[in-house]
Amino acid sequence: PKITKRTIFSLLPSKIMYDTRQLTHSLKVGTALVLVSLLYLVDSLYEQVGENAMWAIMTVVVVFEFSAGATLSKGLNRGIGTILGGGLGVLAATLADQIGGSGEAIAVGIFVFIFGAAASYSRLIPAFKNFFDYGAMIFILTFNLVIVSGLRDKKIFDLARDRLLTIGIGFAICIFASLLIFPVWSSDELHSSIASKFHKIACSIEGCFDEYFGSVNEKDNQITARLDGFTSVLDSKSKDEILAKFARWEPWHGKFGFYHPWDKYLQIGEQLRELAASTFSLRDCLQSPRQPSSKSLKLSVKEPCEAMASLLACTLRELGQSIENMKESKPGALIVAQLQKTKLELSVAISASKLGSLGKDDGIAVASFVFLLMEMVDKVEVLAKKVEQLGDLANFTCH
Amino acid sequence: PKITKRTIFSLLPSKIMYDTRQLTHSLKVGTALVLVSLLYLVDSLYEQVGENAMWAIMTVVVVFEFSAGATLSKGLNRGIGTILGGGLGVLAATLADQIGGSGEAIAVGIFVFIFGAAASYSRLIPAFKNFFDYGAMIFILTFNLVIVSGLRDKKIFDLARDRLLTIGIGFAICIFASLLIFPVWSSDELHSSIASKFHKIACSIEGCFDEYFGSVNEKDNQITARLDGFTSVLDSKSKDEILAKFARWEPWHGKFGFYHPWDKYLQIGEQLRELAASTFSLRDCLQSPRQPSSKSLKLSVKEPCEAMASLLACTLRELGQSIENMKESKPGALIVAQLQKTKLELSVAISASKLGSLGKDDGIAVASFVFLLMEMVDKVEVLAKKVEQLGDLANFTCH
Repeated sequence: PKITKRTIFSLLPSKIMYDTRQLTHSLKVGTALVLVSLLYLVDSLYEQVGENAMWAIMTVVVVFEFSAGATLSKGLNRGIGTILGGGLGVLAATLADQIGGSGEAIAVGIFVFIFGAAASYSRLIPAFKNFFDYGAMIFILTFNLVIVSGLRDKKIFDLARDRLLTIGIGFAICIFASLLIFPVWSSDELHSSIASKFHKIACSIEGCFDEYFGSVNEKDNQITARLDGFTSVLDSKSKDEILAKFARWEPWHGKFGFYHPWDKYLQIGEQLRELAASTFSLRDCLQSPRQPSSKSLKLSVKEPCEAMASLLACTLRELGQSIENMKESKPGALIVAQLQKTKLELSVAISASKLGSLGKDDGIAVASFVFLLMEMVDKVEVLAKKVEQLGDLANFTCH
Repeated sequence: PKITKRTIFSLLPSKIMYDTRQLTHSLKVGTALVLVSLLYLVDSLYEQVGENAMWAIMTVVVVFEFSAGATLSKGLNRGIGTILGGGLGVLAATLADQIGGSGEAIAVGIFVFIFGAAASYSRLIPAFKNFFDYGAMIFILTFNLVIVSGLRDKKIFDLARDRLLTIGIGFAICIFASLLIFPVWSSDELHSSIASKFHKIACSIEGCFDEYFGSVNEKDNQITARLDGFTSVLDSKSKDEILAKFARWEPWHGKFGFYHPWDKYLQIGEQLRELAASTFSLRDCLQSPRQPSSKSLKLSVKEPCEAMASLLACTLRELGQSIENMKESKPGALIVAQLQKTKLELSVAISASKLGSLGKDDGIAVASFVFLLMEMVDKVEVLAKKVEQLGDLANFTCH
């Protein structure tokens, strides 16, 4: 299959060709499919499993997901759903069989209705849905297939056992390909995505002030890209939650132990989103037409503001790097002290009486972003403490 | 099955018992499952379809989703995936058959690898994933099952045709139960969720100022609930996008035509999220410890601020109601004029010189929320225009 790889490479647009993770994933799926097809392709294997090999293929196609955690979660869900559904299905089929006659079909119908409706209802309960949505679906499927097959074929014990066995084979192949060949971990992605958010917000804060004080020499596009970094942070809640859900299923690997504090990551993410919302207001405020148009006015507040903004950005980068490398940053108390000091300097430099001497609207506009900046400092202080807590929980190493 | 309903009712916690939509959904799934099980339960039907009835059951379990749009989208995806996968599978199997001998198995393996990897890759491309993720999965599944079955059973044309037929039966039952029995429309949900966001933000704005000026008599919990309405708006992006995706699949029904402008709803949602981010900063600003603690200072700005806040809330409610009832609101230009007038009054009432006479920090704090309020007025003006555009596109009726 040397030709295969080359064909795929030449077919892909060059821009996305370099996203090797996605390409690797596709090749892994292809490999897993070929492996599971061996159940059909090799005569001696086919004699063992027969038509049930179908269930192994189905398992591979349906369970194989991009990240190891997602694959594990789906596979275990499928396993639990199949065992529960199969077990209850066999029980219900035996019960219906005892009734016999035309009562059997009616009993089967009633069972199908009750269990189908109840399991569908459970899929709508958020807490349950979050972890076992797929398992409940497989439960309904297996239960129904087993109980109705019981009407036609009395050897349902064998049927259920054989299917479970082949599903197990499919699952084993998925686990092999997903966890052992270049695994993609949701935990890694969550970890680095949280760390990168610090950098994005830091860039946005700097970008806003650079633009405001006119100290930019870049092209328009680049500024906009830097400024808009925080918007991806604002909308990241659901993505973070999905990653954390899968990260919890992932076993010990690399730098993460079994009980890595993923909840703390979500809390930090939440705090980062609050900070991003403030950055959003800050950008709006700085870009507002109500800001003073005269350059000299702006220059009079430039120094303390830029000092504050660059300290904020610097602190954020430090915190992000601390998470990224899993190394302790400066103690939270020290960071807070530093921020407080600069905040005081800012508030002394820009006194309200000075603002009063500006034009009416100008004064309000400048006062407003100074205030927003101070609010952001408070938020970064909270962040620093949370990162320190994460360091304690996850045993970040010292400098 | 009188006992069924009662059993389910008594098992459910009383709080969620009243969510009749979810209960209805469960009963609909139960009904669909019983209907599709008839393929096994009724002898004359079973003689027609045989073991392939399994595929009909599988289709119902997998395709039946909460809303009509989601069911349609999954069903059509399954149909397209099955036809494409089956067709290509038959072709590939015939091609491999021509080779014959041990080359046949190798050719099958290569086909499985190429098509599996290519389809998996396509599932990672966002634009494709959004609409055809499930279809691609079913394509891989059907292609594999058909091509490997071809090795063992030379009647794969019949096999593919029979499976497609039974999947069609399953799909028809889903469509019947989902679209004709108490249908749940994603389009309805998107419509009312967008409308309710206006009310949530309006409540939050009023709540913030009521709390600030100390004119609240409610219990703490109630205030917090009112204040926090906007947070659900902030995190609504992914939910809105999913609803819009399904709404596009839904056929003409009720008040929505075939080409209802769902994109406009998403744009309005985006604008509402921006407004929610500003509300977030406004709440932070008003709850900040930097705000003046003296009551007399607050009272001096109370009147113009409350007038502005209540006009904002009132405008938002009006716009929300206009969408809710699909009736034209006041023309955007009129709303804008009214907002501009009140904004001017506010800016005259709170001049910077007056702020300068306040204490240093107090002045900055008050100036800041006045500025934020003005920025919010700008956003509401944009919203009013967008709602007017929606009204034009979706033919809202006149008063």
